[in-house]
Amino acid sequence: MPKASVKTIFGTALRSLREERGYSQEHLAERAGLHRNYVGGVERGERNIALENIVKLAQALSVRAKDLFDALP
Amino acid sequence: MPKASVKTIFGTALRSLREERGYSQEHLAERAGLHRNYVGGVERGERNIALENIVKLAQALSVRAKDLFDALP
Repeated sequence: MPKASVKTIFGTALRSLREERGYSQEHLAERAGLHRNYVGGVERGERNIALENIVKLAQALSVRAKDLFDALP
Repeated sequence: MPKASVKTIFGTALRSLREERGYSQEHLAERAGLHRNYVGGVERGERNIALENIVKLAQALSVRAKDLFDALP
């Protein structure tokens, strides 16, 4: 099995936290001021998300940015 | 005093960890496979660094990516 990419690991963590909150992708995107398609792309590991959007998503999930990195090296 | 931006807070954390290691910007950049000017721009809060490069810099500093987020919300 190939090693999961950084983007995939991050996306999985994001999805997991979002689902814990019971938020749809659309609801999370609205809370963060981002587009739903963008959030979907991040969750699928297709986007190399940058710092400012990482912090926006963390705040929209009521977690700290570092909590999204728990599964990363 | 205006609130420090996410990019500035991250850049300050990066610089602090780099200096703890005794690495020059050039040495850190080489270890991470990035350009020295890019690392300088991140440290000055000029760059909205993305996920893959965050992980590269963390590994080059022998820390976890989340350790670069300690000062962020």
